[in-house]
Amino acid sequence: MTGTLTIAGLGPGNDALVTPEVSAALAAATDILGYAPYVARVAPRPGLTLHPSDNREELQRAAEALRLAAEGGQVVIVSSGDPGVFAMAAAVFEALEGAPQYRDLPIRVLPGITAMLAAAACAGAPLGHDFCAINLSDNLKPWAVIEKRLRLAADADFAIAMYNPRSASRPGGFGRALSVLKEAGCGARLVTFARAVSAVDERIETVTLNEARPEMADMRTLVIVGNSQTRRVGRWVYTPRRVL
Amino acid sequence: MTGTLTIAGLGPGNDALVTPEVSAALAAATDILGYAPYVARVAPRPGLTLHPSDNREELQRAAEALRLAAEGGQVVIVSSGDPGVFAMAAAVFEALEGAPQYRDLPIRVLPGITAMLAAAACAGAPLGHDFCAINLSDNLKPWAVIEKRLRLAADADFAIAMYNPRSASRPGGFGRALSVLKEAGCGARLVTFARAVSAVDERIETVTLNEARPEMADMRTLVIVGNSQTRRVGRWVYTPRRVL
Repeated sequence: MTGTLTIAGLGPGNDALVTPEVSAALAAATDILGYAPYVARVAPRPGLTLHPSDNREELQRAAEALRLAAEGGQVVIVSSGDPGVFAMAAAVFEALEGAPQYRDLPIRVLPGITAMLAAAACAGAPLGHDFCAINLSDNLKPWAVIEKRLRLAADADFAIAMYNPRSASRPGGFGRALSVLKEAGCGARLVTFARAVSAVDERIETVTLNEARPEMADMRTLVIVGNSQTRRVGRWVYTPRRVL
Repeated sequence: MTGTLTIAGLGPGNDALVTPEVSAALAAATDILGYAPYVARVAPRPGLTLHPSDNREELQRAAEALRLAAEGGQVVIVSSGDPGVFAMAAAVFEALEGAPQYRDLPIRVLPGITAMLAAAACAGAPLGHDFCAINLSDNLKPWAVIEKRLRLAADADFAIAMYNPRSASRPGGFGRALSVLKEAGCGARLVTFARAVSAVDERIETVTLNEARPEMADMRTLVIVGNSQTRRVGRWVYTPRRVL
């Protein structure tokens, strides 16, 4: 049987948000690779080998997946959310660039519900108008690039979805990001902190940017800064479709 | 029975991309409202009333849905893609703002696979780094705002997902958008035209921005302009995770 490599998005956590396409790929897999907490979402069964790995090992994981597929495996790499948004798909293509012997392997990317969509749905519709998505991790880019993008995003009046706002190894960046946006005149904007979206311990909280504190975010939080028009109606937060 | 209003995303077209959460909401619905081609994706059954409507009637549709839910219906508004991205969720909250008598209705927003995620998955991983999403329709905002956002997005080196690039009533905007990006120095960037993603007549094509012509897009096309680092590997297009 010809081997295949599928890069699949598991959505934010709740199985009701996993697409049937992804469920079918998982059911047909011989090997599943990914960051351990994501692999743990797949039930073991005979004929399936689970290959959990650590967070920072994306390229090794991608290379291993290519190798297993070349040997004939039905290989699935799982990402949380969508595999194309700050996740494994780009790492696989990067690995493929360095391994031309695998260029003819059948590869598929299966989309998933990325965190910002699930977070926005819980809050209302803060991404209802033009927006951007910025990964606040400076592991793979200089912090200056992040600051520049935040300033330009504020100037463009985009709503801003912030991925990976804060972690134990990067405690300071998110506070700096808030400062940059305050300096850019965004202090009155609404900021939604969506933690553990769709999981049992989900928590959604909205404050103004002036009221936001760095400790309100951790690695399980997706932060959405509204645009200048984003507002509340009852318990909801939404960004109007119209710009006057 | 208490009425409820659910705003659900059907994904880009293929039923394998509809989440189980959305399928369950459709199965429990008494009334389904939406733009006619989206309502047509739901199979008729006894006990279900379908309410198809025209494209430009979002606010009327939202008001009607609120009224039906207040009367006790299990009402679902369907959007293509994700309801929070250039779709019905913001319209519902806008209608709710003008109709305080409905503030206590149980409302849920159910996320879906938005077009840019499905398009990116077909192409590879062009949204693998920071990106923005811009609605090119100037029905609800001045064209000058769109041009400003495109310039700032180019300056930020975001990949750019363009929704609603071109329609019969707006034949010229997309060509202007391409010109703005060329003037901003983006001529060598890769541009992916993803038409009818996940449908039987799906077509994915990638060219450089200098090679792109306005006629390559229509209302069923999602356009993704890569960032300055976006590149090809085999038949794939991806944006590296790393900025040097």
